[in-house]
Amino acid sequence: MASTALWSRGAAWLRSCRGTALQRGRSREAPGVLRGRGCCREVVATCERYAVRRLPFARLADGDVAFFERLMPGRVVTGEEEVKPFNVDWLKSVRGCSQLVLKPQTTAEVSQILRYCHERNLAVNPQGGNTGLVGGSVPVFDEIILSTALMNQIISFDKVSGILVCQAGCVLERLNEYLEEQGFIMPLDLGAKGSCHIGGNVATNAGGLRLLRYGSLRGTVLGLEVVQADGSALDCLTSLRKDNTGYDLKQLFIGSEGTLGVITAVSILCPQKPKAVNLAFLGCQSFAKVLETFTTCRAMLGEILSAYEFMDEKCMELVERHLKLSSPVTDSPFYVLIETSGSNSTHDEEKLNNFLEQAMASGLVTDGTVATDDKKIKMLWSLRERITEALTHEGYVYKYDISLPVGKLYDLVTDMRARLGQSAKNVVGYGHLGDGNLHLNITAESYSHSLLDAIEPFVYEWTARYSGSISAEHGLGFKKKQFIQYSKPREAVVLMQQFKAMLDPKGILNPYKTLPSALESSTC
Amino acid sequence: MASTALWSRGAAWLRSCRGTALQRGRSREAPGVLRGRGCCREVVATCERYAVRRLPFARLADGDVAFFERLMPGRVVTGEEEVKPFNVDWLKSVRGCSQLVLKPQTTAEVSQILRYCHERNLAVNPQGGNTGLVGGSVPVFDEIILSTALMNQIISFDKVSGILVCQAGCVLERLNEYLEEQGFIMPLDLGAKGSCHIGGNVATNAGGLRLLRYGSLRGTVLGLEVVQADGSALDCLTSLRKDNTGYDLKQLFIGSEGTLGVITAVSILCPQKPKAVNLAFLGCQSFAKVLETFTTCRAMLGEILSAYEFMDEKCMELVERHLKLSSPVTDSPFYVLIETSGSNSTHDEEKLNNFLEQAMASGLVTDGTVATDDKKIKMLWSLRERITEALTHEGYVYKYDISLPVGKLYDLVTDMRARLGQSAKNVVGYGHLGDGNLHLNITAESYSHSLLDAIEPFVYEWTARYSGSISAEHGLGFKKKQFIQYSKPREAVVLMQQFKAMLDPKGILNPYKTLPSALESSTC
Repeated sequence: MASTALWSRGAAWLRSCRGTALQRGRSREAPGVLRGRGCCREVVATCERYAVRRLPFARLADGDVAFFERLMPGRVVTGEEEVKPFNVDWLKSVRGCSQLVLKPQTTAEVSQILRYCHERNLAVNPQGGNTGLVGGSVPVFDEIILSTALMNQIISFDKVSGILVCQAGCVLERLNEYLEEQGFIMPLDLGAKGSCHIGGNVATNAGGLRLLRYGSLRGTVLGLEVVQADGSALDCLTSLRKDNTGYDLKQLFIGSEGTLGVITAVSILCPQKPKAVNLAFLGCQSFAKVLETFTTCRAMLGEILSAYEFMDEKCMELVERHLKLSSPVTDSPFYVLIETSGSNSTHDEEKLNNFLEQAMASGLVTDGTVATDDKKIKMLWSLRERITEALTHEGYVYKYDISLPVGKLYDLVTDMRARLGQSAKNVVGYGHLGDGNLHLNITAESYSHSLLDAIEPFVYEWTARYSGSISAEHGLGFKKKQFIQYSKPREAVVLMQQFKAMLDPKGILNPYKTLPSALESSTC
Repeated sequence: MASTALWSRGAAWLRSCRGTALQRGRSREAPGVLRGRGCCREVVATCERYAVRRLPFARLADGDVAFFERLMPGRVVTGEEEVKPFNVDWLKSVRGCSQLVLKPQTTAEVSQILRYCHERNLAVNPQGGNTGLVGGSVPVFDEIILSTALMNQIISFDKVSGILVCQAGCVLERLNEYLEEQGFIMPLDLGAKGSCHIGGNVATNAGGLRLLRYGSLRGTVLGLEVVQADGSALDCLTSLRKDNTGYDLKQLFIGSEGTLGVITAVSILCPQKPKAVNLAFLGCQSFAKVLETFTTCRAMLGEILSAYEFMDEKCMELVERHLKLSSPVTDSPFYVLIETSGSNSTHDEEKLNNFLEQAMASGLVTDGTVATDDKKIKMLWSLRERITEALTHEGYVYKYDISLPVGKLYDLVTDMRARLGQSAKNVVGYGHLGDGNLHLNITAESYSHSLLDAIEPFVYEWTARYSGSISAEHGLGFKKKQFIQYSKPREAVVLMQQFKAMLDPKGILNPYKTLPSALESSTC
């Protein structure tokens, strides 16, 4: 049987990623060199780099694979090469050792998979577009990967209400293209839009570039269909803007990173496509001026302001060097991107011009360009959107996604830069200033424990001192879960653990993620 | 001791509201005449009108009152006359028999109260401004009333971020006035603003008049402080726009109607006060034209549209008759109120005028008036906001708060009117059309079981047929909880009951509310 042959290869590969028993704490043996976007063989297995012990789940057996083959013939992936991309995260920073990827097409299939895994005590790693940045979307050990890649059907769209209902595996950009044809847009947008799935977006409560205008998914997601750990489906897929009948269960699944249930379908409120979009890309001589520019534009642009992003000069340098993009605005320590979206181009341009005149006259901005046509708008957006990609060309990237009071936002970058000195290649800051969200990124030629120790827990302590969040929008996943206490009190974490125990008593759903666990303290 | 004397009077009164044991199902003996806003003695006790059995909580003893008097001297209310207003809802439709109202000022006091009640197995009814419409804010039996009336301190307001942190007992209108002085507004507004507390707003996930523009409390509430059933405080009072560290626990408390915890403080994101507000009050000749007007204005007003409300001619007649208000627009079967809020009065007026010209030219609206000054805006808003009040002058009001696909919204009113014929005095419809939210109200001289039986479950079955919600924004409280299954599947209700059991194992928090219970099947 084909699956058995594939399975053998998988088993051979598995041996290669079982390391020697490691000491408690971070492994000192793991070099973890990562250059560019090469073969994932180079990525050190998560269970080798981090001190984490496999929980006592059952191990996959031939009979299990045979069961899934019968359930969904042709949509069971077991070959080492085929499984490999599902085991490694987009950043190529963590690697699991799963031997099995399942690609259900329907909620009923997801139910049957989870019922079986629950019964057999097999751990499951739900995976969307695998674009997460905290190691939440790939297995840590041999968890079965449940991919939503084939759950990509639009179920309905109502042009009167703007409510879209679709399966969890729909790619964000495809949804947006579909909606644009009907005069609407998705209420969220992010750099990973070409790959990420809406189910993953909801499971991680993705923020992104439109949050300033359209709010978080907690407001725009109207309904969810979720399959629980034991395989039972929970149908809260309503398409109503308002529904106060009992507790809002769907909220618990939004942002739970697949640890409480598998989201199979989403109902989401989509705004009308703005008739006019304008972009201003500006240079500021200090972060204080970036802040003042924000205050001014918020007052003058009001309801048409749809994005206020910032990046420092180092970000611009990396984007230009690695991606060969060129900016029409240069020689500034900071850049801001301001987007307006409105229903009347004449009004919007007038508002924007008034603001720009004032900003230039008062010296808030020293250089800038404005775009109204699609091509130039896309080009300017790419300067901001592709920073993450540019950074991966620098070697290993230590990523931090911090919420802070907006006035303190850049101090963390400055302090970190001073602290690390020459031991880091780059310390850069960019992000969604309008939401108080900083992306602090530190690069080095390769992963090193000593650099990590210089960064953490300093970065978390600094954040906690100003009552910030150690994860604004990326979630906790595998990499940040042990730092939750910097942003949440003990009582809250205990309550979260109670919810987890109630909804997934065997702990099979995305184990080793989101919540700290006393059990995970040793090796693989 | 003063408290003992008061207590004796309370005990005497308690006897008067203990009815004879009633048969299963609705009591046929209870006449329940209710005229105007007279003495609450006239309000039939909830346990007499409805078939509900007191759960086996402890009964209040002198020692309990003494404990509370020591804990918070001068803020313990026990006199019959003083307690009375806390026992009866604003509609004067339900009445509890509590003998004790506690008025804590701090979270620590709330903790101590709940710890004591949990230990003693005493039931507690959290109460804000007592403006709820589903009997959720008053006791059913002798639950201790925990009033947030004295928890009315603003903790902080940050003008840069627009984030307000305040105690739960702040009155919504007071908060809005405070914010207006700083150039901001609350993201919600409702008719009850002069009395309702922000804690109650959050506990019931209040919708209201600004939801169309600023979204639901699920997006704007950034943090909560909650005291749990056992008295432990849960501090999730963050002031960050984005925070993805673990499960969003606060969401479970939003809209849980005080059954899972007592909200003691709120952190909420407030929008800037719009520089320009315009109001158009228009007459439409059919509901189809009301809908078409909505589609047109949404496209033409875009981002400045902040409210789209509708009311039928019967609503207008009652507002004019009982409240002596007069409308400048007359002789239309339907009226719509359109509000714009923006940052540039010239632009906004131009957009509104363009829309009005088109709406008049195409015959969508036949009459109308526009207001830009505060006084006229308030007058026009009062025509819509005071419908609820006008209805109470008609006798007993059967209130339904329904979410439906917007195209079906008024069909329910028409069908209900045809069904009830002469047995109802009025069948009226109004509401937040922009949110798909209908307020269906039926009035009669007095409460009658036969009329109720003609309305229910018909109204819920009708709503469920179109996948609507039987409570869009009012919640389930006491009156609607047994109908939850019309809007939520069994699995969801079971899960809600598990949450309740986990967070409040003794069930002392606002018992008999929100969730159906197998135990409550007989009499008081």
